[in-house]
Order: sequence, then C-alpha cells, then structure tokens
Amino acid sequence: MALGEFELIYRYFSSHGRGDAVALGVGDDAALIDLRPGEQLVTSVDTLVEGRHFLESAFPEDIGFRAVATAASDLAAMGARPLGMTLALTLPEPEDLWLHTFSEGVARAARELSLPLVGGDTTRGPLTVTVQVLGGVVAGTALLRSGAVPGDQLCVSGTLGDAAAGLAVQTGRWSGSEDAADYLETRFLRPQPRLALGMALVDKATACIDVSDGLLADAQHLAAASGVAFEIDSTLLPRSPALQSLPDIDQQLRWALTGGDDYELLFTLPAGVSLPAGTSVIGCVRTGQGVTGDFEASETAGFQHF
Amino acid sequence: MALGEFELIYRYFSSHGRGDAVALGVGDDAALIDLRPGEQLVTSVDTLVEGRHFLESAFPEDIGFRAVATAASDLAAMGARPLGMTLALTLPEPEDLWLHTFSEGVARAARELSLPLVGGDTTRGPLTVTVQVLGGVVAGTALLRSGAVPGDQLCVSGTLGDAAAGLAVQTGRWSGSEDAADYLETRFLRPQPRLALGMALVDKATACIDVSDGLLADAQHLAAASGVAFEIDSTLLPRSPALQSLPDIDQQLRWALTGGDDYELLFTLPAGVSLPAGTSVIGCVRTGQGVTGDFEASETAGFQHF
Repeated sequence: MALGEFELIYRYFSSHGRGDAVALGVGDDAALIDLRPGEQLVTSVDTLVEGRHFLESAFPEDIGFRAVATAASDLAAMGARPLGMTLALTLPEPEDLWLHTFSEGVARAARELSLPLVGGDTTRGPLTVTVQVLGGVVAGTALLRSGAVPGDQLCVSGTLGDAAAGLAVQTGRWSGSEDAADYLETRFLRPQPRLALGMALVDKATACIDVSDGLLADAQHLAAASGVAFEIDSTLLPRSPALQSLPDIDQQLRWALTGGDDYELLFTLPAGVSLPAGTSVIGCVRTGQGVTGDFEASETAGFQHF
Repeated sequence: MALGEFELIYRYFSSHGRGDAVALGVGDDAALIDLRPGEQLVTSVDTLVEGRHFLESAFPEDIGFRAVATAASDLAAMGARPLGMTLALTLPEPEDLWLHTFSEGVARAARELSLPLVGGDTTRGPLTVTVQVLGGVVAGTALLRSGAVPGDQLCVSGTLGDAAAGLAVQTGRWSGSEDAADYLETRFLRPQPRLALGMALVDKATACIDVSDGLLADAQHLAAASGVAFEIDSTLLPRSPALQSLPDIDQQLRWALTGGDDYELLFTLPAGVSLPAGTSVIGCVRTGQGVTGDFEASETAGFQHF
C-alpha cells in the first residue's frame, strides 16, 4: 500500500481506524485483522464513479458515506459481522477541503457501521471511490442466495422505492410533498445497510440478498440462485409515508418494484417463522422459476449497473 | 457486489477463482474465505491508473498481470500466504477483445501467484484497476516495518533498477544493449512479487518492505518505522547483467537507488543469520535515523505516487 496522499485522508479519522479486530491498521505494507476462532472471512468490493453512481454536484461527505454504506450492505446480505474496510480513492486534485469533507463522510460511516479503515491507496485520475469491506461469520452460517425453498415466505426490510424517489428529488423530478423531499433525499444519500438485521437472520433466513438494483431485479437473482419462483403481491410492498405523498400511485409502485439503491434486505423465511421487527412479507416462494406478480411486465426493468 | 459486466471478465478465468481457501467465490453478495486456525488476515489494496501507472499504449494483458502482481507484493512484504483477491475495474467501454486479453493477464497472475479471484465490480468510467489482496499469516509472525535493530544486516532480493530501465526501454530512452531490452521490459511489465521469500523470512527477518517507490525511498520508510539508521554501500547493490550493459554507470546507480517498481524485498536480518538464496547484503543498520551511503544527495529523490 502506498501511503502518499492517503495520509491526507487518514489524518481526518485516524481514531476511526481502530477496532477490536484490527491487529495492525494503516502504515505498514498491509493490515492485519483478527477473526474469531471458527469464523470465515466475508469480503466484497464496490466502486462508485462520478456521473454514474453519484451526481457531479454531490457533496463530498455524502459520496464518502454512501461509498462505505453501499459496500457494507453486501456484508449485511451475508449476515456478517463487520470487521473493517479498505478504501481506494482516485481523484483529480488533492483539494484539502474536498478531502476533509469526503473523509468526514467516510469516518461517519466507519463509526456508525463499525467498519474501521485499515488500509487504502490514493491515486490521481478521474474521481472513483472503491471500498472493500471485510466481515466475519461463523463458518457455514453465511446467508447465501441459494437456499430459498417452495413454501417460504418472501420478506423485505424497511420500505422500498425511497432512494429512487430521493434521486428524483435531486434531479427536480419529484412532484410529491415538499416535506417528504428531505427524507427521501437522505434515503438516497445516506443508505443504512441492515447489518444488525443480517446478523439476526443467520440460522433463520433460508436465502438473502440486498436490494441494490431494484426489488424485481434482485428478486430475480435470488430466485435464480435458489432454483425457485417468487410470487410478489404488490399491495404488500412497504412504502414510506414520504413516498406515499406522491399523487401518482403507479409511479410509487414502479419505484418500489424497480428503483435501485434502497439497500434493504430481501430474504426468505420458512413458513411459521415470525418476522423480525421492521420487516414485511411481500410474497411467497413457489416451485418453478422467475418472479411473477400482479404488475405489468413494463414495470420489471431494473437498474443495470454499467 | 454487482455482477453485471463482471461476468464478462470472470468467464475468462472462472477456473482460476478456485483455491483451497475459497469457500464461496464469485456469484453471491460476497465471497467466503477460510483462514487456518491461528491465522490473521493480511490485506492491502492498490490502484493502477492509465497514464499514471502504465502507459496508454500498454497491452491489456500486461496491465492485468501487473495490477495483480504489484498488489501481491504487499503480501510478500508481510510474509503472508496468498489466499485470494478481488478486482474493481473501471473502464470506458466493455470491448470484448480488451477484456479478453486483460483477463488473460489477471488469470495468469492469479495462477502463478496462487491468488484466486473471489469477487469484483465493474463500472464504466476512465480506466482504473484496483486489486485488493487477501493473505494469511500465523498470528503475531507477520513481517513488519518496525523491527530492525542496530547491528542487523540490510538485505535485498533480486536485482535493482531493472524496472526503471525497462520503462526507459518503453519510452525510447534506453541506450544499452538491444538484447537486454526485452529482459528489462519484462521486469517492468511482469513484476515477480517475492511471495515465497516473504514466507521464508517469517521468524528470520526483523523488518521488511517491498521496493515499489525506489530503494532509497523505501529504505527511508523502513528505517523510520524501526527508529534506526541505514548505511548503504552502493558497490553492493545487485544489478542485472542487462542493466550493466548500459555504458552510463551513473545512470545504472541512479536507477538502482531510486528507480521504482522492482517489487523486490528489502529486509533486515540479525548479524550471523545466513542469507536466503537470491538475496544480497547491501548495508547495515545503525543507531540514528535516515539513510546514508556513498552516493550523492541528488540521487535520493524516489518516485512519489500521486
């Protein structure tokens, strides 16, 4: 790891580089992380690119927070205990104010999500932010996409469609309540990965994925990995009061079905297993393949990265 | 992890995503890695940017190989056993031929360095390649930068200055033997991280770093972290026959002292401990601080990333 300008970032939150699992943080050739006996390492990487995953007008603090939160959502989807993260930042110019506010966003996410920053690299170039998250899970208990069986309940956490509506607020396409706008923007800019829920679902859920591409797209991934079909009842889709302030009910439904970036968990529970707090049943698992429901095919185009 | 176009890459080397430690590879929300009982996780991240870390004319296969090899060098410097890696690739257009040859380079490095690809993300944007490496080391035995003590021997693996000379070949600034040019270019384009040596140095070396920024720059890092001084004898610097074909002896010495990208290991050994094969003593450790030697101050400017 080249230190170089990474020190510019790290000095803003060196106190957040510490954590129970961090045996050696930033400053040597690599970091050292302790897992608990019997744990497997869980790891995933996500990149955000300016103009593609965030607007050029985005506040650096939001970019930093969101980069960490979206990566951490993959740990939640596996039921993993957060251990730490690394950050690879490419940026055009090392502007002190930009780095300061960006780092505050990273530091806030690191603190709130228990993900100490253990390493990183900074390079000069067009703005891209890559976060690698590290977690631990008792061997053999990780939540996979492949375990759903016919008869399971199909469930989701929180509410759906908020982030898509929040992006519409940002781009001037929101026609609902003004009071709702702030809430929805925050849902887009400051996603809350469901780490506690993911850990609580270990040994309960049969399959799990996070909703990043949109409910239908991610439901299709989950159904395909499990070799089953999902049937979704759109009247059961949890929608926030803010989203419901939008007069256009069809648009509410479209966002709830296909809007990306909510970072809720979509999971399956055996029949009879009671729902964790803050989650809803939205359908059921059947034999077959694909995702069906009481909605138009035209509403099924999810956001495709790249 | 968004699969998306990552499948474009992964399909070129899905067979290289397997490894002893890989419990779950690409295809779920995150990967699962097994460590051995008593091992700590070692992790580091490195980014290569077009125009900064490789020429725009570089072959995609070389870019792929080099991105993995340079990241893996941080595992070597810690004495870690390679477990796997993730790849975050940002590229302007998903051109099939480019991805094919790039992936061949990644696959070759994955195979040669025992680093199965366990996850990744692809995004559209200016070309940047970020590789995160994962390794394991018996808890408490990692090679750190901080353990050198006065009286130790200062040692380096392989030969120095070859990569800088290889870059000079690429940019038309080489005036040595034509026969040597191919060798030197390969040393730049296909660095060989010293993973086996790093593992062999565990419990022997007192401190270790990889030479990425140039011998003097990295020696300064190592000396500072250990709180000691190094004295280097430039007549002892190992130089390849290819580099020695250059008539300008001063230029040979400058590259050996300050040329980056060799990815050799610089380490300290207690007096009397015999040298591993393929390594040389280049100086000694003294009380004090900084790096001194029989060379001009003007030769001490190392390559600064960013």
